[in-house]
Formats: sequence, structure tokens, C-alpha cells
Amino acid sequence: MEEEDAAADPYLPYDGGGDTIPLQEIPKRGSNYAMSNGGGAPSSTTHLLDFLEEPIPGVGTYDDFHTIDWVREKCKDRERHRKINSKKKESAWEFTKSLYDAWCSGRPDRHRRRLDERPEGGRVSERHVVQPRAVLLDVQRDHLRRAGQVPSVEELGRADPGAGGGPRLVHHELLHVHLLGSVVRLPRRLSGQGVRPIKTILSGFIIRGYLGKWTLMIKTITLVLAVASGLSLGKEGPLVHVACCCGNIFSYLFPKYSKNEAKKREVLSAASAAGVSVAFGAPIGGVLFSLEEVSYYFPLKTLWRSFFAALVAAFVLRSINPFGNSRLVLFYVEYHTPWYLFELIPFILLGVFGGLWGAFFIRANIAWCRRRKSTRFGKYPVLEVILVAAITAVVAFPNPYTRQNTSELIKELFTDCGPLESSQLCQYRSQMNGSKSFSDNPNRPAGPGVYAAMWQLCLALIFKIIMTIFTFGLKVPSGLFIPSMAIGAIAGRIVGIAMEQLAYYHHDWFLFKEWCEVGADCITPGLYAMVGAAACLGGVTRMTVSLVVIVFELTGGLEYIVPLMAAVMTSKWVGDAFGREGIYEAHIRLNGYPFLDAKEEFTHTTLAREVMRPRRSDPPLAVLTQDDLTVEELQATINETSYNGFPVIVSKESQRLVGFALRRDITIAIENARRKQEGIMLNSRVYFTQHAPTLPADSPRPLKLRSILDMSPFTVTDHTPMEIVVDIFRKLGLRQCLVTHNGRLLGIITKKDILRHMAQMANQDPESIMFN
Amino acid sequence: MEEEDAAADPYLPYDGGGDTIPLQEIPKRGSNYAMSNGGGAPSSTTHLLDFLEEPIPGVGTYDDFHTIDWVREKCKDRERHRKINSKKKESAWEFTKSLYDAWCSGRPDRHRRRLDERPEGGRVSERHVVQPRAVLLDVQRDHLRRAGQVPSVEELGRADPGAGGGPRLVHHELLHVHLLGSVVRLPRRLSGQGVRPIKTILSGFIIRGYLGKWTLMIKTITLVLAVASGLSLGKEGPLVHVACCCGNIFSYLFPKYSKNEAKKREVLSAASAAGVSVAFGAPIGGVLFSLEEVSYYFPLKTLWRSFFAALVAAFVLRSINPFGNSRLVLFYVEYHTPWYLFELIPFILLGVFGGLWGAFFIRANIAWCRRRKSTRFGKYPVLEVILVAAITAVVAFPNPYTRQNTSELIKELFTDCGPLESSQLCQYRSQMNGSKSFSDNPNRPAGPGVYAAMWQLCLALIFKIIMTIFTFGLKVPSGLFIPSMAIGAIAGRIVGIAMEQLAYYHHDWFLFKEWCEVGADCITPGLYAMVGAAACLGGVTRMTVSLVVIVFELTGGLEYIVPLMAAVMTSKWVGDAFGREGIYEAHIRLNGYPFLDAKEEFTHTTLAREVMRPRRSDPPLAVLTQDDLTVEELQATINETSYNGFPVIVSKESQRLVGFALRRDITIAIENARRKQEGIMLNSRVYFTQHAPTLPADSPRPLKLRSILDMSPFTVTDHTPMEIVVDIFRKLGLRQCLVTHNGRLLGIITKKDILRHMAQMANQDPESIMFN
Repeated sequence: MEEEDAAADPYLPYDGGGDTIPLQEIPKRGSNYAMSNGGGAPSSTTHLLDFLEEPIPGVGTYDDFHTIDWVREKCKDRERHRKINSKKKESAWEFTKSLYDAWCSGRPDRHRRRLDERPEGGRVSERHVVQPRAVLLDVQRDHLRRAGQVPSVEELGRADPGAGGGPRLVHHELLHVHLLGSVVRLPRRLSGQGVRPIKTILSGFIIRGYLGKWTLMIKTITLVLAVASGLSLGKEGPLVHVACCCGNIFSYLFPKYSKNEAKKREVLSAASAAGVSVAFGAPIGGVLFSLEEVSYYFPLKTLWRSFFAALVAAFVLRSINPFGNSRLVLFYVEYHTPWYLFELIPFILLGVFGGLWGAFFIRANIAWCRRRKSTRFGKYPVLEVILVAAITAVVAFPNPYTRQNTSELIKELFTDCGPLESSQLCQYRSQMNGSKSFSDNPNRPAGPGVYAAMWQLCLALIFKIIMTIFTFGLKVPSGLFIPSMAIGAIAGRIVGIAMEQLAYYHHDWFLFKEWCEVGADCITPGLYAMVGAAACLGGVTRMTVSLVVIVFELTGGLEYIVPLMAAVMTSKWVGDAFGREGIYEAHIRLNGYPFLDAKEEFTHTTLAREVMRPRRSDPPLAVLTQDDLTVEELQATINETSYNGFPVIVSKESQRLVGFALRRDITIAIENARRKQEGIMLNSRVYFTQHAPTLPADSPRPLKLRSILDMSPFTVTDHTPMEIVVDIFRKLGLRQCLVTHNGRLLGIITKKDILRHMAQMANQDPESIMFN
Repeated sequence: MEEEDAAADPYLPYDGGGDTIPLQEIPKRGSNYAMSNGGGAPSSTTHLLDFLEEPIPGVGTYDDFHTIDWVREKCKDRERHRKINSKKKESAWEFTKSLYDAWCSGRPDRHRRRLDERPEGGRVSERHVVQPRAVLLDVQRDHLRRAGQVPSVEELGRADPGAGGGPRLVHHELLHVHLLGSVVRLPRRLSGQGVRPIKTILSGFIIRGYLGKWTLMIKTITLVLAVASGLSLGKEGPLVHVACCCGNIFSYLFPKYSKNEAKKREVLSAASAAGVSVAFGAPIGGVLFSLEEVSYYFPLKTLWRSFFAALVAAFVLRSINPFGNSRLVLFYVEYHTPWYLFELIPFILLGVFGGLWGAFFIRANIAWCRRRKSTRFGKYPVLEVILVAAITAVVAFPNPYTRQNTSELIKELFTDCGPLESSQLCQYRSQMNGSKSFSDNPNRPAGPGVYAAMWQLCLALIFKIIMTIFTFGLKVPSGLFIPSMAIGAIAGRIVGIAMEQLAYYHHDWFLFKEWCEVGADCITPGLYAMVGAAACLGGVTRMTVSLVVIVFELTGGLEYIVPLMAAVMTSKWVGDAFGREGIYEAHIRLNGYPFLDAKEEFTHTTLAREVMRPRRSDPPLAVLTQDDLTVEELQATINETSYNGFPVIVSKESQRLVGFALRRDITIAIENARRKQEGIMLNSRVYFTQHAPTLPADSPRPLKLRSILDMSPFTVTDHTPMEIVVDIFRKLGLRQCLVTHNGRLLGIITKKDILRHMAQMANQDPESIMFN
């Protein structure tokens, strides 16, 4: 029955007798596994203690700046579910608790909770202090590094060749350094984030305190100020961030979500849908935005929940009725004429413009942000904001189209000229004569007002384009939807008016002759503005379906689905021709977040063994053997290395893999054993097997660590193409994967190894990954 | 340098010298792998021939009724891409071909094509004959089984304990039997399918000819007849099927899609979006329907392509303009009053009704279909259709609401009563007096026309409910959207009129007093009909987001998003309380298709080793050793077993896994070697290693099979919880997975093992999976 392994193990029999097939272990979690314990093996009742043992508190949690393991988190949640379901029959009280859990809160897992309340004696206070401090970390790190106080990521990286992640000591050092007089800088550097870090967090990265109450308060206040300032920015990014803060804070009320990082991310996905829903009153667009753009792991269950969150958000928004009418729709339009087939040509041209603008904007904005990051200029963010605001104010004021609120500008551009419209854009000559009503004379030669408006719109277009490039990425909360839509709407309206005049003066052209009756009004400039807005937004974000839905919900223009779709598709194609990244991905890469993009395909032919650690010149892989280490040796291994986890093997000779143990879990388990178990000495034997190894009579009590051993580590062979490995990491959300060759352990691949490798393949600096 | 293994292998060194780490093999696909070939090993130039070798034709294709391997298919496609990209610099011609490929067609892979054109001499004609025949297989199997001519799946299953799938011989036998006089039955039994088998095919199952030109023709004709017959059925299911047939047929023009089963499924996903798009003129709803309901693997790239397909479909539909107006929207509504908060109560009640109706319908319909399958009744499908059509005609005719076309009925129910409305539903008393115009007197006490209409609507509701249960599942092409919406619209209109009268006669109630001014019209019965339609459709299909979008696109009722969402969510909750399956999943389970549902969570605690084959009492796992088999032994192993593939191990003693070889590939490779290579005898040694084993001088030439060896098989440990295994199968679309324990091969889990296990856990008959 012993499972430990000799190198020259005899042939593992499959011939039905099967005594040595290790099937006799009783599954840990009380399954309905009913195989008889035959085969003459000694009964395992002596080991029944094993699964009565309490779980070790703290095992299975994460350090800051680490990546979560989706598979493990989801398992934990299902485990919790099962526990509640099996207990629910015991008493009415447990049944009530199960209902409470189902009603989206959840029964606290006592053991886990205990960890957080009094982890290792007296650290409670520290935890509460660390959290707000940790906010500063991201914010302050590059700041301090420039001042030479903190080791750069490259230096950290060198200390950490295998499994990624910051070493603990350095990390605490950092926290300490950061505390020195940096609280006042918090609001200044925390700003200007929005959708991008949310994407990173949703992909499984842990940034503690980034979605906390301080962020919520500061973001809320500054967003109001920023939008009111008249800068060329929108509000959807900050609102998504604010919604995620709310989601995160609410999730702390329900241990089911706060204790499980994967479940928490489901809440955040729904929150981001609600954020877009309130930003534009577009609930379905919000859900699709969350699906297409923000989220990483989006099961159908999350789709329904996001839908519900967006519904409630839209409902509350409607009850408050902020726009003072009973409509949810922000820019409601109603056009009186249908569109004609030949108009697809200008619509597609608008799509081309949108794509070009998007590609240009992304390049220019990223270049500017890189300059800001890499030069001394970035040290004066407040000055920069003041400067940009001042320039915006001075330049924007003279032109009526830049002076007014951007939302109102878009509304005006979208609106068709009716008889009651007093806008400058509607000063056609027929109206100026005054003798006839509008509907009697649909011929619309442009009047001087329209000509003036055209010039002003052209100037406004140039102004908006330039200012948006410099504004997005400023240290203020800033979104992109409204400025992008404004640019598109201006361009679209210009094209629309041009088309209209063309049709008026050349109504005998074959195109117009066929579609436009003489004397009839056949071009709607407002529709062009709407199409242009969608195209420009599509060029910048590269969204498709969610974008069209958002535009629907904004305008109610359901009849114009084909023009919108055509323009958005064109815009995406043109934009993708100049670079596949949307603005959010580009900024994530600029900031060096460890984000494994689900959209980008990995097309290189490298194999797993070329990416795995250890490399040729590296020291050997740090492994643990399953039953012949002492506590002292184990601690030495942990102290000498900085890896986040260690593979456990049968023996050094066979190199056959048994499982994987996380550094954090081992440390916690040893500390816990020292406190609670008597007789654990430095020379105690550590074993990961089911049964204790046979020891000499005088040896101290051995320490069993099987409960922290992950007995189902993911493995791939060394011949596995990296494209498959990347796919597995993406779809399953892995943290690491072990590499074997012919059943022997060869190395390890972590998520950060993959990101480094991908950067290398794309000829980027691999060290730019991870918080630079 | 030899990689074959002795059981007592010395410690695998990692100490930098690393000579025995098997890194020296040159990757097959010309990667940028640039590791120096140091370490004193003999250079491997003698083996350069390996990667100049042609691939063996036929390797990597699938048999009928098998499950595809998504990972492998995607790899094949990326490989093709790389080949084209590397060739494109060679000449202008290759560059043109690469453009042609990028423009969604693709360069034919010559080797693969050759297989299909002349596989093993003279089978060309057979292939073309087999395809239409294969259509019959699904259709006729249960028919013939009942007559005792064909072995049942249970019998087949017994011959095939490990890797699933039908044995070849039996399969051919089947085809032969089927050909006997069954062509005439084709149209009869092929009908009544729709969305359900499409879902199964999209999840990775191969049913040849199911989406062929015959199906397309027959479906198209019969759909017209079925819809025209006045039966209580819709057209979206058959239209999805027809669109998928078109997608499948078009994909044969482009080898890029026809040769790759995963790519073909992307086309089919887009096609099903286009199908819904034309069924209702709802392009975005179609994309979301494909995403939420039909598709299995739906990457973002497919989202964009589906979007494009739906756009083109909607555009063509608009150009043809089948409804005779310039609107795409089928049931355009325009209500003049907003909705009030208290109206949420009846809306939610309508949601409850929808959920109850959905749950009831699914149970009743499935029970009826099961009866049809299991009793003699199912033998007379034509008679059944005639009977149902006759009953429908007789019962439906007297009532004006059942007599008229269902789409027109829905339109009438949705429409609000305006002054020009002459419908019976709008005969309010104020209008009948005739003295005042409608807008002057908004008080609307019901007239006798409305009371009569109410009775007729109630009768129509009961009739529709009963007839839909018996109609869906008939052997005619039938969809569910229109009948479900009609039922919901009738119920909604009844509730709406009741509310309206309540508000009229009790306008001093606190609810109405607050919201409805006296004399003002505050209830819109048409809106209730719309909400009811959405709720009933939601109850049957359990869609949420896509459903709301489809209703938007059908009605243009963007203002009513909150009522719609509230009703749809309620309907889903209520329906799910009675059973989580939507109608499509229920039918898939009824038909026993091997479908691994992505929505249903696996929550049991079993471990991989309880599910894997071989079981305790089974014969040992059939394995191949990497270098000591002869051709004769290999053929014996293949002939004695019926597994679809065999793990390759280092040696019987060590049981260490090297890779996985598919039965089909081995057979093809041996046949190919016999034809082409001289000196391959029955006692030739077969080897899967990089280098030939050292053989005695007089032994015949060995046969190298490394090229067909999958060197990166997926493995899990025997301790892996099944919930993780199920997750991996779902997300990666695996066909099989090997189970190891401490680095040793223990068994295998196939997709069908998982389905059987899930059925077992749910206390269903595990043998009902797979074509019963």
C-alpha cells in the first residue's frame, strides 16, 4: 500500500488483481465513491484522522500582486456549495443559512474567516493598515524608482527567475518606504485609470485596495470636477471604475464573494456592465461592453447576472430621471426619411475615417503617454493638468461648437433640421425667405448660417482631435466615448451637409436621380453624424456588436442598423490594418500589466521546453521529495529560493511528479504546526504521502503536509506547442503549469514566463512586462 | 542521446551540463529555436530526412459520428497559416495566394486534398455515394433497430468500452442495411430538427451529410409548406438549419474551412446568426442568439464574423424588402404614453406566467415526444402530421384570432388602439358613440367588441397552448418563436385590457390616482402584449440578453427596456425553479446526442480515477510501446480492440507516457507504408522514437511512426476532481484525456465516458447517451 516509489518499481499491474493500483485511498471530500476496499490491503481506518483534521487557516489565499488560479478558486466555491447543501438537511437553522447563501450572500467559511480576523496573532491591525497603503504601491512605485529608492522590476526579476511574483521581503520594504509621506499624493496619482486596470484585475491579477473606499470617494468627486471642467474627456471609464469599487465593497458584505477571487471577479464583471449602463442609460450595451471589451472570464451565468445588474442600474437611473424627461435615451433621434442604398458609400467612407482616426489616435496617444512616463515631464502631473485645462479653455471658448458641453454638441449634431429647429446648422435659404413653411419646401440650399457652421465645425474637429490626444491619459479620471463620438459626429455632419448640397445642386446625377425625387429631401445630415460617431468610437475601441447596441440605445435609431453596422465593420477593418490593439490593450501594454490578451493569437512555433524554466544555464529546478525531507531542509529550500511554489516528486532518482505545493501554503502550514502540534522539531520528517514513512523509533513526530498538496497540478509535455499552452492558460486561467518529458518532471511554466516569451517573440523588451 | 528508457534510469541531471535532457531534437516546424547543439552528442543531421518527409495523407481526419478534437484542429489551422505566411515572400504567385487565403478562402492543403480525391485507390466514387447515404443513418437507425435489423447502441457500446465511437465494420454494415429501400423516407424523417442538432454539431460532433444540399433543398421547400399550413409553428429553427446548410456548402468552396472541422464550426456559428437575422430581420439579436443559445466555441473573432454575416443577411433582406415597406422591423410599435412604476407589478406577473408556461410546455412537450419515440405511435409520422394539421384547421377556423396568420395576430395584439384602428380589440364605447374624436375622449370603457374579443382571446390562448405542445417535434420543420410569442402576446393583451378597465373603473385607487390623471389614458394594452410575448419566449428558451435584443429589433420599443428586462428575468427565474433546461437542451437530451452542456455545472465530488477506463474488472488498457513492437503485433492490437486511439509508453515496466496515436492514423500509416516503402514486412519493427532502435543486422527495415504520434497528449492525475476534468473538456474541446498517477499511465477518459458518468450521477440511464 505504500505509495512511495523506488526507481526500479516492478511493472504496475493492470490484470484485474490490481492490488497495487492506488485506488484504495478514500477521497477526501466524502464523495459517493463506493468501491469496495478489497485486495487484502490493511484497512485505512488508522488514517481516518486525516479528513477530520481541520484545514490549515490561510492556505489558499493570495499575496498582493499575484495572479489568481481560476481553476482552484472555482473548485473552492463548488466545495463551499456542497458543504452548505449537505448541511442544509441537518437543521432549520442551517436551511435558513443555505437560503441566505442562495440569496447571493453566503455562509462564511469559518476557518478562512478566522485567518483574516486574527492571522498568526496580532497581525490584525497590520492588515487593516496595509490595505490602504497597498493602494499607494502601484501609484508610487515608478515615482520612487526614479528617485533611486526602490529596486526596479528588472532587479526584482533577476531575484526571481522561475515562478513569477514579488519576493516577500522586498515587498514589505517597499510598503515601508511608501508610507513615508505619500498619503497626500494619493488622489493625484490614482487618477486617470479607468477601464484598463479593471481589465487587468478581471483577468486574474490581485491589486489590493485598488477598488477600495478611498478610490471610490476620490474618483466620484474628481469625476464630477473633471467632467465639469470642459476638458475633452468622457465619463464611461471612471464610472466603470466607480461601479467596480462599489461591487468590490459590496462583495465584502458577502463572504461567498469576498473570500473567493474568481467569484469576486464575476461581481466585478457585472459591476462594469452596470457602470456603462448608468454612464449612457444603455443597459444592454453595458452588458455587451463588459462581455466584448472588459471581461476575461465570462460564463453565461455572469451574462445573466450582469444583465440583472444593468437592469437595476437602468431602473434606478430612470427613477431618478437625471435628464428631466421620461426617456432613458440620451440622444434620442427621429428621422423622417429612410436611407438609400447609394448612401452606403459615404457611410463606408465615414467608417474609413473612423478607422484612420482610431489608429492615429492610439499611436499618437501612446507615444505621448510614453514620453510622459519616460521623461522628466511626467513628474509634474498637476502642472500638466492645469496647462491642458487652460489651453482647452482658451482655445475652446471662441468657437460655439467647442464652447458648449460635448454631450449637447453631439445631440445637436444628431438632430435633423425640423421646422422648429433654430440652430445655426439649420439656417437653410428656404427658411430664411420666411414665406413658406418648412414642409412645403424641402429644397434645402445652404444659407450663410450653414456655411459658417461648416467652418466652425472643421475648426472644432481639428481642436477636438488634438486635445483628446493630450487629454486621455492625464492624471484625471477620463473616458473616451464622448470625445470620440463628438469627433465622429462632427465629421459625419460635415459629410452629411456636403452630401445634401451635392444632391441639391446635382439632382440630375444618375445616383440622385434614381433615389431622390426632385423637390424631395433625401439626405439626412443627422444620420451621417450618428454613423460617424459610431465609426470613430469603433476605430478607437475596436468594439463591434456592443458598440452598435450602445448607439441604438443612445439614439433609438433602430431603423439604421445596416448603415451603423457597415460603418463600424469598416472602421474596425481599417483600424486593424494599422495595428490590432484597441486603445485599452495599448495602454495595458504601455503600463506593463501582466495581461494575457484573449483576442491576440499566438502564432509562433516554439515548444513548451523552450519557454519553461529552468533554462540551460539556470540552476536546477527547486523540487521537494514526497517523504524524505526534514522540516529544516524544507525551510532551507524555501529561504534560498523565491519561487511561489514547488513541485513535489516521488524521488530525485525517478523525477516522477506527485503534486505541487505553494510557498505561501508551506510557510503557513509549518508555522501552524509549530504553534499547535507538539513534537515538531527541525529534524522532523515532512511527508506528502498518504501514510507516514517508516521511521526509526527515536525520531521526532513527522509532519504531514498532504492537505496542502495540490494533487492535480496541470502538466504538459515538453513537446507541446506554445500555442496550445497559451490557449490552456487563457481558457483555464492557470497560474503555472509543469512540464514533463516521458513522465518525468522537467520544468515549470508560469503565466509571467508566457508573457515574457510573448514579448520576446514580438521583439519587445521582455522586462517591460510587470509594473515598469 | 537515445530517448528510450530503462526502468532504472539514473538521476536525470539538471546541473547545467544537462546532456541527457532531451532538448537536442530539432523542432519539426522550422521554429526560431536556436539552442546550440552542445554537449558532445552526435549531430542529428542523419535524421534530417525526418522533416523533409511528406505527411501521410489522411492522417488527422475524422470518421463519421466521431467527436472532433478542437485543440488539434486549431493547431492545424495555425500551421496552415504559417506555411502560407512563410511562402508568401517566395514569389508573387504565392503572395497572391496568401491574399486569396486572407480574403476568407484559403490555399488548399495539397496532401489533405489528395486524400479526399483518391483515398487508397478508387474510393472516390464511394465517398460521393456515402455522403447522402450517411444522412439516413441518424434518421433511420432507431427505425431499423426497432425492427431488429441493427445492433442497438448498447450492444455497440459493449464492444467499445474505452474510447467511444462506432467500430468501423459495424458502421459499414449499417450503411449497407440502410441503403435498402430507405431513400424515399428521407424527407419524412429528416424534418423536425432545427436548432437542436445544430447545437450538437457545433459542440464538435460529426454527422456527415446532415448539412448537405439535399437537406437544404428539402428543408427549404417543406418550411414554406409547413408555415403556410397554418400549424402552430415558427420558422426560426428551420431557417437556422437552412442557413447552416448554406454555410456548410459554401465552406466546401474554401478548403481553409472545409478541411478543418473547428474552422467549419466558426462558419456554422456565423451562419446560425444569419439565419435568425433573416427570420426576424434582427441581426444583432441573431448574433446574440448564436452566442447565448446555439454556439459552443465562440471566440471574439467569431463574434465579429457573425456580426458581419448577420449584417449582410439583414442588408440583403432589406434590399429584397419582403414586407413591402422600407422597414426591417417586423412588428413596429409606437406607443404614445410612457409606462408607470406600478405597472411593473403586472409586468412581473406576466414574467411569472411566461416562466410557468415555459416549464409546463417543456415538460409536456418532452413527455409527448418521449411517448412518440417509445410507442408504436411514432411509426406513422405522416399520419400524425395530417391528423394534427386537420385538427388545427378545424378548431382554429371559427375563432378569428386563431384563423389569421400568427404573425399578423401578434402585430394586431402589439398595436395600440389609435383613432384609425378598426380592429375589434379597439371597439371602445367612446368610439362607438361616434360623436367625439378619439383624442378628445381618452376614457376607454370597453364596448361589446372588446368583451367579445376577450372571450375569443381566452379560447385562442388555450388552443395555442395545446396545439403548440403537440406540434413542436412533429416531423415537419418547426420553430418555436412565433407560437411562444403569440401565446405571450394573447395573455399580455388580456392582462393589459383588464388593467385598463381596472384603471378606468377604479381611477380613485391610490395606485391609479397617483399616476393616472382622471380622463387620461394611462394603460397601453399593446405594451402588455409585447412584454408577455418576451416573457413566454424567455420561459421556453431561457434566453435573456439575446431575447430582449430580438424583441427590440422586432418592435423598435427601445423605451420599454426596463419592463422587458424585468419580465424576462422573472420568467427565467420562475422557469429555472422547475428545471434548468431550456427546450433545446431538453430535446438534445431526449435524442441522446453527445452534448456536453456548457451551462450545466458539474457539482459532484468524484475523482478522475473513478471515471477513467479501464475499470477494476476490465481488461488492461491497450497501450503501445515506443520501440519494441512489430508491425504484426501492432496490427493484432488494432484488430483485437475497437478503441479510437492508443497511448504510447516508454516500456511496459515503467508505464511512462510518451504520446498518443489514433487508430485511424495508425491504420492509414501502415497501409501507406506498405504501398510506398519497400522492405516493410510483418516482422518490421515499429518505433515512435526520434531515432531507430538498434536492431540485429538481418532484421527488416523498421517503420517510423513518429509523425503520427501526438507528443502532447493531455494528461490529468488520478486525483483530479471530475469538476476540473469536465471544465477542461468543455473549455478546450478535448476528445480524450489520459490519466496518470505519479508520472505513470493509469487510464483514459473520453468525452463519452464523461457524458456517461454525468448521466449516472444524475440517476439517468447512462446508455441513453448516444443515438438511442
